[in-house]
Amino acid sequence: MRPLVAVIMGSQSDWETMRHACDILEEFHIPFEKKVVSAHRTPDFMFAYAETAEERGIKVIIAGAGGAAHLPGMVAAKTTLPVIGVPVMSKTLNGLDSLLSIVQMPGGVPVATVAIGKAGAVNAALLAVSILGTHDSAYMDALRMRREAIRKQVIEGSDQLE
Amino acid sequence: MRPLVAVIMGSQSDWETMRHACDILEEFHIPFEKKVVSAHRTPDFMFAYAETAEERGIKVIIAGAGGAAHLPGMVAAKTTLPVIGVPVMSKTLNGLDSLLSIVQMPGGVPVATVAIGKAGAVNAALLAVSILGTHDSAYMDALRMRREAIRKQVIEGSDQLE
Amino acid sequence: MRPLVAVIMGSQSDWETMRHACDILEEFHIPFEKKVVSAHRTPDFMFAYAETAEERGIKVIIAGAGGAAHLPGMVAAKTTLPVIGVPVMSKTLNGLDSLLSIVQMPGGVPVATVAIGKAGAVNAALLAVSILGTHDSAYMDALRMRREAIRKQVIEGSDQLE
Amino acid sequence: MRPLVAVIMGSQSDWETMRHACDILEEFHIPFEKKVVSAHRTPDFMFAYAETAEERGIKVIIAGAGGAAHLPGMVAAKTTLPVIGVPVMSKTLNGLDSLLSIVQMPGGVPVATVAIGKAGAVNAALLAVSILGTHDSAYMDALRMRREAIRKQVIEGSDQLE
Amino acid sequence: MRPLVAVIMGSQSDWETMRHACDILEEFHIPFEKKVVSAHRTPDFMFAYAETAEERGIKVIIAGAGGAAHLPGMVAAKTTLPVIGVPVMSKTLNGLDSLLSIVQMPGGVPVATVAIGKAGAVNAALLAVSILGTHDSAYMDALRMRREAIRKQVIEGSDQLE
Amino acid sequence: MRPLVAVIMGSQSDWETMRHACDILEEFHIPFEKKVVSAHRTPDFMFAYAETAEERGIKVIIAGAGGAAHLPGMVAAKTTLPVIGVPVMSKTLNGLDSLLSIVQMPGGVPVATVAIGKAGAVNAALLAVSILGTHDSAYMDALRMRREAIRKQVIEGSDQLE
Amino acid sequence: MRPLVAVIMGSQSDWETMRHACDILEEFHIPFEKKVVSAHRTPDFMFAYAETAEERGIKVIIAGAGGAAHLPGMVAAKTTLPVIGVPVMSKTLNGLDSLLSIVQMPGGVPVATVAIGKAGAVNAALLAVSILGTHDSAYMDALRMRREAIRKQVIEGSDQLE
Amino acid sequence: MRPLVAVIMGSQSDWETMRHACDILEEFHIPFEKKVVSAHRTPDFMFAYAETAEERGIKVIIAGAGGAAHLPGMVAAKTTLPVIGVPVMSKTLNGLDSLLSIVQMPGGVPVATVAIGKAGAVNAALLAVSILGTHDSAYMDALRMRREAIRKQVIEGSDQLE
Repeated sequence: MRPLVAVIMGSQSDWETMRHACDILEEFHIPFEKKVVSAHRTPDFMFAYAETAEERGIKVIIAGAGGAAHLPGMVAAKTTLPVIGVPVMSKTLNGLDSLLSIVQMPGGVPVATVAIGKAGAVNAALLAVSILGTHDSAYMDALRMRREAIRKQVIEGSDQLE
Repeated sequence: MRPLVAVIMGSQSDWETMRHACDILEEFHIPFEKKVVSAHRTPDFMFAYAETAEERGIKVIIAGAGGAAHLPGMVAAKTTLPVIGVPVMSKTLNGLDSLLSIVQMPGGVPVATVAIGKAGAVNAALLAVSILGTHDSAYMDALRMRREAIRKQVIEGSDQLE
Repeated sequence: MRPLVAVIMGSQSDWETMRHACDILEEFHIPFEKKVVSAHRTPDFMFAYAETAEERGIKVIIAGAGGAAHLPGMVAAKTTLPVIGVPVMSKTLNGLDSLLSIVQMPGGVPVATVAIGKAGAVNAALLAVSILGTHDSAYMDALRMRREAIRKQVIEGSDQLE
Repeated sequence: MRPLVAVIMGSQSDWETMRHACDILEEFHIPFEKKVVSAHRTPDFMFAYAETAEERGIKVIIAGAGGAAHLPGMVAAKTTLPVIGVPVMSKTLNGLDSLLSIVQMPGGVPVATVAIGKAGAVNAALLAVSILGTHDSAYMDALRMRREAIRKQVIEGSDQLE
Repeated sequence: MRPLVAVIMGSQSDWETMRHACDILEEFHIPFEKKVVSAHRTPDFMFAYAETAEERGIKVIIAGAGGAAHLPGMVAAKTTLPVIGVPVMSKTLNGLDSLLSIVQMPGGVPVATVAIGKAGAVNAALLAVSILGTHDSAYMDALRMRREAIRKQVIEGSDQLE
Repeated sequence: MRPLVAVIMGSQSDWETMRHACDILEEFHIPFEKKVVSAHRTPDFMFAYAETAEERGIKVIIAGAGGAAHLPGMVAAKTTLPVIGVPVMSKTLNGLDSLLSIVQMPGGVPVATVAIGKAGAVNAALLAVSILGTHDSAYMDALRMRREAIRKQVIEGSDQLE
Repeated sequence: MRPLVAVIMGSQSDWETMRHACDILEEFHIPFEKKVVSAHRTPDFMFAYAETAEERGIKVIIAGAGGAAHLPGMVAAKTTLPVIGVPVMSKTLNGLDSLLSIVQMPGGVPVATVAIGKAGAVNAALLAVSILGTHDSAYMDALRMRREAIRKQVIEGSDQLE
Repeated sequence: MRPLVAVIMGSQSDWETMRHACDILEEFHIPFEKKVVSAHRTPDFMFAYAETAEERGIKVIIAGAGGAAHLPGMVAAKTTLPVIGVPVMSKTLNGLDSLLSIVQMPGGVPVATVAIGKAGAVNAALLAVSILGTHDSAYMDALRMRREAIRKQVIEGSDQLE
């Protein structure tokens, strides 16, 4: 099946974070592709990749990067598809650099930024499902069911404190 | 025409920022509604609003807030529609508080966060257009045309430096 | 005995921090209840919980949360009881995000914020005792005795440096 | 009438911020006293003031300070009354120094910290009312009425955007 | 004369900062070109520009940008010429975002980062002169003379305090 | 011998940091006393201690504290002796809170602040020696000899890289 | 009269801040000299100045600087006299850069750092008086009198709120 | 062979970071020297070293330092050679202090700053190669080949995710 979502990351070391996005997409049976695409080390490949994503049927791009995290913003500059940016935790500044580099985009080229690290990767995928869900109610239903399941878990987990 | 996008904000003073989102939606002829919905001052209205947004035909919610900016995250907790959060510049901490309160959502409930202030409001609207565009190529075409126009402006503006 | 204080937290993982609040309440023989109440994963339960807290006899609510810590502020939006917010240490930004999300509430809906982490949890409970103590001198006496005991410990501990 | 609440501040220049707390207390007809009490310039007076506050009938102390804002924490060290700290906006670091100096108290001596600046001053007073309200339902009723009035204002203000 | 240095900036509004770099280059009689090249709004032009800079005789590129300042890093990804990045002061976060986005480059693609704002623009140009000077002693001599002149100014200025 | 320097700290856990100050004082054969003096847990003792330090022959006070580190500033408010503040590394905010709480004193009551953690403790003691040295050239000579020894160590250490 | 205190600053623009230190020294009738000494623009002069300060009778050096404020630390590296560093407010980062550059000195070479800006300049001078006062009780008496005068002002100012 | 590049560092403990710069220089067969040169502990040696670097044939100086990292800026004040500053990760503030101390240089004396830690050390060396390459095309060719090799590695590494 043709992938609907692309999960890309600036370096192989980001996989530890970004695999959580892939796990969610699998949970929702959404076909996706995953790739290392480096803004700084493979700039031409990045541009080609971003430019052709839409024609290859991709609907949403999830891009994770750390430090001077240029990948999400540069991909967003080369496509009008929704681009979701995941700030990967950096060693030196706790991911604050990654977050600011991704979220502080100038007017004209948006990146939908999520939380730093694992929670962000999970939410990037859920946001992608939600975007697909704007025109496919099955996804919306699946999101609602997931939330309901989690709601129950929280309520039950609460009893275990006691 | 029924609104496809909702632009909500935590207080009337956020309008100065959020009107830039509305300007973009008008530019794209996207029907939208705008409202002050305060997480802290009108919590029940906020929940009712978020809960019924989907059935009223809303596809994307843009929520702007400043300080302990709970509006985007709480709306996201009550709907599975894509929620875009705009951190409004705060008086005391330059919007860093708004940004962190909006973007650092826990795994399970995403908010698509954009830049602090005006650029963020503009990009929130463009992101909404892009989300609608995933299933309506007219929006994608319009986005591409806008980018092309801006590209030309930049090139021309460059000559004016000299 | 009916609980006078409610200790709630956004996720089970916050228990490691929030149990220090419970320890203090037990030390003062104050009846309390403890629960996981998630602003984002159980929003309706949170609202119902906050709305009915006062009529169930609760006098003070202690709410711990991390990251985009919306729980204390949203509970405060649904009750006029004093709400004490404990910023739980976050993995990525050392709890600065939790702190700002809790403390930077807009005028109209206060959250009494304490320090990040364990010290904050301890102090949240002591603050609750102090609030109860404004109309029950036994609590004030107990607080004074606790302080006196700690004062002695510090003085004695000082000798152990030598 | 004997004051129930004390509004103190580290310097006369904090009055611009702290008068918003006094306005709220007047709105609720709560007798209060206001004073400049400087931790660093009048340390003995501060200690005497804090030590005798309870016997003079004070129920809650609101203390505003900026920079290395030691006033709230030192007052809290000398009384077991609830102490609410208001971080006053500082010229150099936007109030981040004031906030951290007030909120990061060690376990044992709590300060109920509110937002930086005017919003914090307003909320400090509302929190004081709420604390008094734990044993005087008239205050709770008044708080509820205030919230209801504000709720209506927000809803109406929303229409003025359009 | 063919330009040796390129001064580029992400937007026309950066000119207010970047003109200080041009002033210095003029002072040293170094031929340069100046252009608006936007990473996000003219990505293809940026790539073409960076790719051909060396063959056009450019020795050093000075790139100024603000916010999620991707221009210096992306130009550096497309050329092996030395790229100097100037963080332009941003409205919302005082240029901290610009600085981190420019300086926190991953291993493999360096950007020589200078101070935020005007001082950075001045120093970017002086650094370019210094780089040219590594193989043209006239530039080194001119730098030394400039420093000597400034040294004298400082000494003389000191007397004016008295 | 009567102590010339007092090394005090807000809690026993600060000893791990502050013992480095004591090591330096011993190296210089300066008589000193060390004590746990807590601003928040032993406020009256702190005031008595600070007030009587001068008459007991103390010339310099070194005070270490973490978090809302009020000890150095409050001691400085109660004595005109030079007070040196050592920000102890905090668990949650890396000592930034300790630093700002100590250094951002209002005009009128100075605290001589040094670096966060061990380096700061070492330097606090060296600064005390230097202050004593302003009127006792033996201390100045000893400081010069220590610097000379360290200078040699650095030069020799450099060879070990190769 | 030979100066006892040196007030130096990295640039003429720091005078606006540093004159507050000079005002205090004049108030205490302490002979002082003031100079612009730039670490980066007059490095040799700075070294010569620092090296000869002690033999010229200087007892304490006050050094103000902003941004990458190297002056206090480098002077401290060239003398064993007590060096007090005043972080001058910077345009771009509110003086946080100045503060960290001055205070975070490595073990071995202390700088006594005070608050950012005017309050710091005032306190630098008061700290110098206090250091001189360790061996000249007239200065200690004068400091005590100044504090007493300020104490009275605060108490009186308090009445003016009412 | 006479060294073209100098790699200096403020302390032996910086070697763990700075050796990555040396590895790169070796990879490019660039003759270099490495030394511990401490701004604060060997100030005269530092000045002599910086002053004579050019006449000894050095073309570029790479200087690593942490905390109040004055080494790069002071070396830059004593030479007109290009100076590259590497902020070494500090224990207390994650290297933010090192970064700001190095990058925020005043107009007139530039330091080419790279990322905090290992990535910065690697890039400092690559930047030095690039500077040498402005007049020696062999270095430019080598840089291009290195980038091409890395490009391939990234592409291949991408397949290993699958």
